[in-house]
Amino acid sequence: MEDRVEISLLVDLYGPLLTEKQLKIMELYYNEDFSLAEIAELNNTSRQAIHDLIKRCYKQLLSYESKLNLLEKSIKKEKIINNLLELLREKYSINSEDYEQCKSILKDL
Amino acid sequence: MEDRVEISLLVDLYGPLLTEKQLKIMELYYNEDFSLAEIAELNNTSRQAIHDLIKRCYKQLLSYESKLNLLEKSIKKEKIINNLLELLREKYSINSEDYEQCKSILKDL
Repeated sequence: MEDRVEISLLVDLYGPLLTEKQLKIMELYYNEDFSLAEIAELNNTSRQAIHDLIKRCYKQLLSYESKLNLLEKSIKKEKIINNLLELLREKYSINSEDYEQCKSILKDL
Repeated sequence: MEDRVEISLLVDLYGPLLTEKQLKIMELYYNEDFSLAEIAELNNTSRQAIHDLIKRCYKQLLSYESKLNLLEKSIKKEKIINNLLELLREKYSINSEDYEQCKSILKDL
């Protein structure tokens, strides 16, 4: 289990496809920085059981990403939006306020 | 099984989460307009078996949509992009060529 930021983004994107319990545990571990021991205590189970669950969910998230590529698309999207707005700004002198507003709206798409 | 266009869009969005065989059958039925009988013959099985598979897959696609809302988001996205470009065009007199190009790039995001 490597890049915590990447896994955290995968949890955001595909979390609803996990069970409620799995999602809660993945969020505690990757988004709220709880330790395995703390999560184990909260769930009345062993550290090893939580470790195994997280490993299983991580593989599941990677499998979803390999099929739907939502994370890859969202990273590409950001670059394309930035390039496009930059071009529009240069050519049409779009003011900073409008530029930032467009950027914020488009990034939420 | 209601709106064929909607189901066809769901197949495009979530198809990779189905098995290869399921996806092939859903594409034949919803995108290429094959009949149940034709698909059954291609797969050496009964019309009823294909009907059941399609019904199961349809429910699975609806379940993915209820969790990830990719179709709902893509419909909203199109409206937001149109509104935003319209505003930019009015305010900054963006020419038609640039307008259409931006629209096409943003819709593929």
